Order: sequence, then C-alpha cells, then structure tokens
Amino acid sequence: VFLFYQSGIPEGNLILDEAESWHCVKVLRKKAGKTIHLTDGRGGLYEARITEAQPRACRFEILTRQFSARPPYSISLAVAPAKSGERNDWLAEKAVELGVDKLLYFVSHNSERVKLNKERVERICTSAMKQSLRPWLPSVGGLVSFAEILTAQADQRFIAHAGYPSSLFQVAEKSGSYLVLIGPEGDFTKDELSLAESNGFAPVSLGASRLRTETAALAAVQALVLKNL
Amino acid sequence: VFLFYQSGIPEGNLILDEAESWHCVKVLRKKAGKTIHLTDGRGGLYEARITEAQPRACRFEILTRQFSARPPYSISLAVAPAKSGERNDWLAEKAVELGVDKLLYFVSHNSERVKLNKERVERICTSAMKQSLRPWLPSVGGLVSFAEILTAQADQRFIAHAGYPSSLFQVAEKSGSYLVLIGPEGDFTKDELSLAESNGFAPVSLGASRLRTETAALAAVQALVLKNL
Repeated sequence: VFLFYQSGIPEGNLILDEAESWHCVKVLRKKAGKTIHLTDGRGGLYEARITEAQPRACRFEILTRQFSARPPYSISLAVAPAKSGERNDWLAEKAVELGVDKLLYFVSHNSERVKLNKERVERICTSAMKQSLRPWLPSVGGLVSFAEILTAQADQRFIAHAGYPSSLFQVAEKSGSYLVLIGPEGDFTKDELSLAESNGFAPVSLGASRLRTETAALAAVQALVLKNL
Repeated sequence: VFLFYQSGIPEGNLILDEAESWHCVKVLRKKAGKTIHLTDGRGGLYEARITEAQPRACRFEILTRQFSARPPYSISLAVAPAKSGERNDWLAEKAVELGVDKLLYFVSHNSERVKLNKERVERICTSAMKQSLRPWLPSVGGLVSFAEILTAQADQRFIAHAGYPSSLFQVAEKSGSYLVLIGPEGDFTKDELSLAESNGFAPVSLGASRLRTETAALAAVQALVLKNL
C-alpha cells in the first residue's frame, strides 16, 4: 500500500500537489482510472480514482472516505537538536512512526547545533506519516530559546534527565496532552533542570542507561504510547 | 565519562587490546597514573589506573570494582536484516542502548538482504554498550534460515506482525527470557506466520501503525523493558 498526502481534501482540493503528482504519474506510472490511497494529514483516509494523470497536477475523485478519531492523548517532544544532521533526521522519522504529534526544537546551553532546517524536518515527517500509514501529520516548530520552550503548554509536562529517580512511564498519567523535554548531547545544565522544575516540569528518567538524544526521544514517545494502550 | 571495554578482566587480563589502547593513549592522550573507567562486558565496572601508557598495549591496575547483577529478564531480538546497511547499523546501536541482550539474524522469504557482516554488528554493539555506560555486551548471532530461528529457545517467544490484534506489551509477562521475531520490509509470508505460530511463537503487534523493521525492533525492546519496570 502506498499512501499519498494531500492537504485540503475536505475543503475540496482534489489535485495532488506537484511533488505528489510527479511521484504518482511519473515514478509509479499511474494512469487515469487507477485507484490511489490518500490522507489529508488530519485524520482522513481516502480511496480515490485518478481522473487526469497530469505529471504536475494529478486530478482525482473521492471514492470512499474514512475518518479516524484522534486518540485521547497527544505527544509533543521538545528536543535540543543533535550535532549530527543524520541523527536529527532519524529522530524525526522514528518519532513520527511511533506516534509523536508535535516536534518542537530549542537551544540549550550545551547545544552544539543552533540551526534547524524546519522544512527538511517537515518533509521527513510527511514521508514518515505516509510510510507508516498514519492519517495525522505532526506539526513542527522552529528553533526557540530554552526560556521560550518552558512556556509551551500541555496537561503533563516533563523534563528528561538520566539522574532522576522516577521514570516517565511510571510518572505519566493516561490521556491528555504531554510535553517531554529532551536535552542535548552534553545534557541539560543544573540551572536548566531547576528552571524547568520551577516552571512545573516533572523530572523523569528514561531508563537505566545513558541514552543519546535521539534514542531518548524515541524511548519517551514509546513510553507514552504504551501508557495509553 | 568515557567507558573502555576489555574482556577477561576477572581472569586477570589487565592490558587494553590494541584498538582500545590506541584510543586511550593516542586519541585521548592518557598518561601513566591517570584513572580510567572500564567494563568487562559481563557486569563488571572498574575504576583503574594506567600503569604503562603503551599505544598498542596499555597496562592498568584495578582500583575499584563493582558488579551489577543481571536484570531478572533478558531480551533477544531476531530480525530479518533491512536492505539498507545504514538501517541495520542503526537498529543494532539503538537496540543496545535500549537494553537488548542478544541480536539474532535470519533470512525470511521476503528478505532483500541475505548477507550479514557479523563483525560490523559486533563493533557497533561494543561501541553502543560503552556509549550508554552499560556493563553488558550483547551477543550477536550469524544469519540463519527461518526454519533454524524457530528452534531458538526462550521462556516467551513472539512473532511480530502489524495484523495481529494483541500487542507485545499486553501479552508479555514480566521476567524471564524473551525472543521476538521481527520481519523484513516486505513482512513475513502467511506460511512463515503460521509456521511460527505452530512452533509456539505467540502472535503480537507492535502498535497501530506500520513500522519499518528497525523501528519495530526498537518498539519491541522498549515494550519489554517497560514491562519489567
């Protein structure tokens, strides 16, 4: 099964955008009359028939539509980007596959990377959504300061650090919105940890061993998904 | 903290092997008299003092030793290697960070890769063990047939497939040895699924969405680790 992504289907947009059209018509060689599967990234899954197989603007008509309700929880991850661009790419891809809803980025005192290619992360998220057949497109935030990330809202907010005694899985409660802060390779500073705690973030660990940033992020997402099973 | 690995310390081997010696003496420029941290990969963590800083055979003496008991469970993953070598590398690294004890590999009907560089996987495991400060070196098995992997023993054996109704986290019981089979990109065939089931493997899913091989492997390890919290 290949899943295409097209925003705005509920509002009547029945043309694949340029990149998706090209993939559909040129790469997969789909002709008019063929059935394709689409998501609008907002819970809708569609079976559609190609009406005009234009390589830059492929038109389709909807055959069936199916909406999935949002799960009763949502997971936001806020991470200090890793120095390695490749590890950041992995983090985004895997977090989406496992079920993240929002990816936020911040600069920490020990950050070795203070730039973020937001469009690149968005492309990876779209691709991972399609690959994993999920009908929800996660949102991506631009890089902000540590002070600003502390103002992000959620029902349950956590800061992850290897030294804390209680694990996220044990502390988190079922349902609602979650936000988990994941530190940079050099870890959060003591000041950052206490600032987060005084701003209402619950201190949690993600297991017994020292985890890389991207591994910590995935461990956090999977812990929250399993908590809500 | 940097953790060195040297096998055989309990048996009196107090010389770092060539690669570790080089890293210690040439890369990190440690001199005689300096303190280093080591693991023997079998639960031992050591503080040691360099006695002879030879770049190919660095000698040390043990200052303190600390043994961690094995957790009351052990996790074996058996995976059909992904086509992409990079994804296989990543699977091994992350599985070790999250707590896998044994990595086994098999060829499935839909496998696109039928070769495995076992030494490469072992190097990645050693490096991930050191990076995550874990004192246990996972073992790595060579590539075997699907029929042979079905003979591997464990207290609880599972085969993962997106179509199954119950999730690993729900079905697994606490403690003991686990073995989870993870399929190739094209998934297990129906014959493989029924063969595994008739050989006593419990059918489980790893969540609602379609996961890549390496993501499924990590989701499985994390589910079993959290089950044993």
